[in-house]
Amino acid sequence: MEGVDILPHERSKTQFDVDAMKIVWAGSRHAFEVSDRMARLVASDPAFQKDNRSRLGRKELFKKHSEESNLCMETFGSCFVTEEEAGRLRFFVDEPAFTDLHWGMFVPAIKGQGTEEQQQKWLPLAYKMQIIGCYAQTELGHGSNVQGLETTATFDPDKDEFVIHSPTLTSSKWWPGGLGKVSTHAVVYARLITNGEEHGVHGFIVQLRSLDDHMPLPGITIGDIGMKFGNGAYNTMDNGVLTFDHVRIPRNQMLMRVLQVTSEGKCVQSNVPRQLIYGTMVFVRQTIVADASSALSRAVCIATRYSAVRRQFGSQDGVETQVIDYKTQQNRLFPLLASAYAFRFVGEWLKWLYTDVTQRLQANDFSTLPEAHACTAGLKSLTTTATADAIEECRKLCGGHGYLCASGLPELFAVYVPACTYEGDNVVLLLQVARFLMKTVSQLGSGKKPIGTTAYLGRVQDLMQCRCEVQTAEDWLKPSVMLEAFEARSARMCVARAQNLGKFANPEDGFAELSADLVEAAVAHCQLIVVSKFLDKLQQDIPGNGVKQQLQNLCYIYALNLLHKHLGDFLSTGCITPKQASLANDQLRSLYSQVRPNAIALVDAFNYTDHYLGSVLGRYDGNVYPKLYEEAWKDPLNDSVLPDGYNEYIHPMLKQQLHNARL
Amino acid sequence: MEGVDILPHERSKTQFDVDAMKIVWAGSRHAFEVSDRMARLVASDPAFQKDNRSRLGRKELFKKHSEESNLCMETFGSCFVTEEEAGRLRFFVDEPAFTDLHWGMFVPAIKGQGTEEQQQKWLPLAYKMQIIGCYAQTELGHGSNVQGLETTATFDPDKDEFVIHSPTLTSSKWWPGGLGKVSTHAVVYARLITNGEEHGVHGFIVQLRSLDDHMPLPGITIGDIGMKFGNGAYNTMDNGVLTFDHVRIPRNQMLMRVLQVTSEGKCVQSNVPRQLIYGTMVFVRQTIVADASSALSRAVCIATRYSAVRRQFGSQDGVETQVIDYKTQQNRLFPLLASAYAFRFVGEWLKWLYTDVTQRLQANDFSTLPEAHACTAGLKSLTTTATADAIEECRKLCGGHGYLCASGLPELFAVYVPACTYEGDNVVLLLQVARFLMKTVSQLGSGKKPIGTTAYLGRVQDLMQCRCEVQTAEDWLKPSVMLEAFEARSARMCVARAQNLGKFANPEDGFAELSADLVEAAVAHCQLIVVSKFLDKLQQDIPGNGVKQQLQNLCYIYALNLLHKHLGDFLSTGCITPKQASLANDQLRSLYSQVRPNAIALVDAFNYTDHYLGSVLGRYDGNVYPKLYEEAWKDPLNDSVLPDGYNEYIHPMLKQQLHNARL
Repeated sequence: MEGVDILPHERSKTQFDVDAMKIVWAGSRHAFEVSDRMARLVASDPAFQKDNRSRLGRKELFKKHSEESNLCMETFGSCFVTEEEAGRLRFFVDEPAFTDLHWGMFVPAIKGQGTEEQQQKWLPLAYKMQIIGCYAQTELGHGSNVQGLETTATFDPDKDEFVIHSPTLTSSKWWPGGLGKVSTHAVVYARLITNGEEHGVHGFIVQLRSLDDHMPLPGITIGDIGMKFGNGAYNTMDNGVLTFDHVRIPRNQMLMRVLQVTSEGKCVQSNVPRQLIYGTMVFVRQTIVADASSALSRAVCIATRYSAVRRQFGSQDGVETQVIDYKTQQNRLFPLLASAYAFRFVGEWLKWLYTDVTQRLQANDFSTLPEAHACTAGLKSLTTTATADAIEECRKLCGGHGYLCASGLPELFAVYVPACTYEGDNVVLLLQVARFLMKTVSQLGSGKKPIGTTAYLGRVQDLMQCRCEVQTAEDWLKPSVMLEAFEARSARMCVARAQNLGKFANPEDGFAELSADLVEAAVAHCQLIVVSKFLDKLQQDIPGNGVKQQLQNLCYIYALNLLHKHLGDFLSTGCITPKQASLANDQLRSLYSQVRPNAIALVDAFNYTDHYLGSVLGRYDGNVYPKLYEEAWKDPLNDSVLPDGYNEYIHPMLKQQLHNARL
Repeated sequence: MEGVDILPHERSKTQFDVDAMKIVWAGSRHAFEVSDRMARLVASDPAFQKDNRSRLGRKELFKKHSEESNLCMETFGSCFVTEEEAGRLRFFVDEPAFTDLHWGMFVPAIKGQGTEEQQQKWLPLAYKMQIIGCYAQTELGHGSNVQGLETTATFDPDKDEFVIHSPTLTSSKWWPGGLGKVSTHAVVYARLITNGEEHGVHGFIVQLRSLDDHMPLPGITIGDIGMKFGNGAYNTMDNGVLTFDHVRIPRNQMLMRVLQVTSEGKCVQSNVPRQLIYGTMVFVRQTIVADASSALSRAVCIATRYSAVRRQFGSQDGVETQVIDYKTQQNRLFPLLASAYAFRFVGEWLKWLYTDVTQRLQANDFSTLPEAHACTAGLKSLTTTATADAIEECRKLCGGHGYLCASGLPELFAVYVPACTYEGDNVVLLLQVARFLMKTVSQLGSGKKPIGTTAYLGRVQDLMQCRCEVQTAEDWLKPSVMLEAFEARSARMCVARAQNLGKFANPEDGFAELSADLVEAAVAHCQLIVVSKFLDKLQQDIPGNGVKQQLQNLCYIYALNLLHKHLGDFLSTGCITPKQASLANDQLRSLYSQVRPNAIALVDAFNYTDHYLGSVLGRYDGNVYPKLYEEAWKDPLNDSVLPDGYNEYIHPMLKQQLHNARL
């Protein structure tokens, strides 16, 4: 069977309604239709072609990117495009853009931290992109620890101005996207100093470049920070470096919604609650989780399709076995397929959480905020770490050809991995979760009832004693059994850690010493959240022939694979027995067999265009090898038969006409 | 304390003789001196400068690479350079080169598979590089399964020639390094057909390009297969595509050491044993394991130094804490440091194994070959998988700056990962190991004594029953305790798998169905080998103040970290108890504290020049931030203040002069 016949044959074996699954994946029929339309729009426009990105030098790449951003703007400007559509369109253009920071960080910073007056002045300019802004927080020497930033904003009451200054090399702003070559303005985070006193880190709107000729303003040094991981990837973005030499801005350019500085230099706290910023964090992290499911599903789609097309060994009747039929391949691939769905649904739930938090904040109810904050921090960490690893695993699952840029996977990996670091380093976030869990456990005796995703800790006494009732492999398919195993594991790990912490005279010393153990408890808790939200999803009414059955299979694959990977946790806490672990493995293998005939349809349900996938290996039609062959010839090295440098370097080698050795 | 003061301060705390450790790492004083001299030679020659690689386009990169290869040749040509020195020099030039395949695959193929006559004809040409060769085995549709290759070599007795032909698109040779632009010749693997009958896959020397003008010969189509992962990385290599349209070669260009084709087209087996090729495999895989320890140690050196320079949070007296002081950082970093040493020593042992196997082969003793083959296959898989993951982990351990090409880590990752796929896909290799282990276990009853790295299986009855005697954390530091835990785990996993296989009527069905479990048993066995060889090393006389103590710490970190990561194995097989696992964790934390003051010295012992490291973050002097700042300005985007495309695309955006929307 040729490549182009394999995938149709695979699709003919599908046991569920793929169109219905597409709606489930998209979230709603409306969301599906908008995505579908925008994906096709982008794919049909040659200006958004992206298969040459890996071959472009930095300058050409950035120029092409500027053209595309311009084109996006034109499209957005048209009355045919709603805000939702614009969002999807940017998504399918599929490259990091300076406009991401303008819309995603600069505008929200002004909205969230600016006064009414400031918003009225700056937002219209930003909305029309008469100014383009970036978010200048991170410094060369300071990342996670925002309070350690060194840039200063010193108030000069004589002139009613702030003086923005970079006192050291390490205080140089470093990394802000859109800064290096494009932004006219930035929200700059700096230590506020008035009357010789420090008042913490605050945001200031600073103009960076002239609106006439785009040249940096006096006292301002800006540049790009150089090449990043991958060929195309984040190199479309002008991440920048910025230093200030006593740059003056008017007092009213400090973002003063929470803290005001008067003309005498006095600091006055407003009545706006500081907690508001946590609402924004919940929002940003929710989008990161959604992005994780997108990136992961894309990699899985490529690897699944190519695993069906690719054949190796086992030649009965002269035809080799499809790689997807090997259990070793299924054992690596199907849990990732399951994770893509799992992350999709937990992302959906986070959207609900954000709405809930926002409504409560508006009603001055901050009670759920710490739990929501811990939960989103943990899920951001869990999903991005898993996705980064999974993309590379999918690349390896494609064998040697996964190493070619034409597979799309190297660039997907390179462009994705920063998600593990930005918006909170993943380990630092897990420590925050652990801290919250330890606090929750310590308050259990006081009668304070844990809420939301920590509610199960309220049943800690039961969970310390419960016994897993699995006796056959099928018993693992009971939702209550699975949930209890994950709850018991997490609860017992939390309690054990809390007890160990109790042995230290100084709790902070204990927290530092045991931090690696604490991170493991946090991971267990976060995995429980994902499993429980997937199980919740299965309780919903899900239309479509066979759709729910497939989701059920994936849910149990996700959970049982975690159980196997973290078996040490489950066994050492006595949550399950070795025999039950072995039954879990048997069940897992049986689920792989059930997913196998549906694997191609399950990735088709993501509804990705070949343009978005950007992978010869993942083509919808499976016509991999002829297209791979065709693609090769586009490399610049194939422009000429003899490579540049042949005459100078290779010919003399062959003809023994080397100069004398230079030693 | 400034960056430049930190590392000297760290070095002042060292508790062992670093110079002595350098000798241990290098293997001998002589090896140290050769390496040291060659590293400095390369570093001092501006032509080998490599910090601009990530910024070069494909053509420029390849041209620069050709220049460097030429220069290497000149240096080798000089009478000052021995073969050993040449090897180290190539190593420190540190980029994939077409000459790697010429020397590493083409020449050995002729040596190993050519007759005396063929060797006399071709080797002198190859040694002088009057011809440059590559190794054309892999095809577009065929990798691991060599017997599935499609290229044909049909004997034509009338003309005493073979006709080399590519019958399908998927039979195109694909991936051979050095093929795309440089090689004049190739050893081509093809199905031998004589008198209408197939006789398996054999090697043929085929000339590809004219020695006059370097143009491809008639019937031959060649090109480069395009961009691969990373900016510089493997893009210096012209991995190629090659098709044959009935290309004729003389009969005597089939490599006939093992099988001869007569002028009548008859196949005659020679008396040279086929097993000889396994000797080559042992050799190649031994070098891959050595390379793993090099790549891993390089990444660890960068991450360790930068973890000492970098500070985040915890500002007592205004100075933030060095990142290396956090237990979460130590828990991720120090096991990788330990792995670098572990792989170094197992690599050293593999050198001995190769010598041993070679001597036996010469004496027609093939008895140890299957065990040696399984062992090297497993160690290749184990060390390359671990190293690829570790490089990425080191990148993450450097925080955001690890994402810059200036950190050196993105390129190191991109250039390293193919090692997981080439010379045997890592999962396929583990399945080979598992097959050997299952066979060994099944023969235990027959009285056949397992040898070499499987000798412990001869004590399987003891190992099934033994009880770990650890009662305190310190008990884990007894070599016999550690070894027994790893032996028992591996033995019990093997036996359990063998029992499960026994339940299948058809053993091959069982092997396929349980393959994921079998891979885990293979991993357990391979980890045991690494642990036991490290423990063996500690039994040797190791001179130098405090050196052995440091190695002891690293050995136990390596083993205890594995024990923790694979706790499910140890607990489910009853090899240790949960309490003992917890004591192992306590011991691990204590070992981290002991390594901490020596961490910088332990990476200094690798004796890497800044040139070889190729990382601003890993600089020997710790002067990271000023150099990072300096490096940024070299990006092509900083050539001009206004980026290319500003006038066409960015200015109109800001001035609202966009064309009409194009929807």
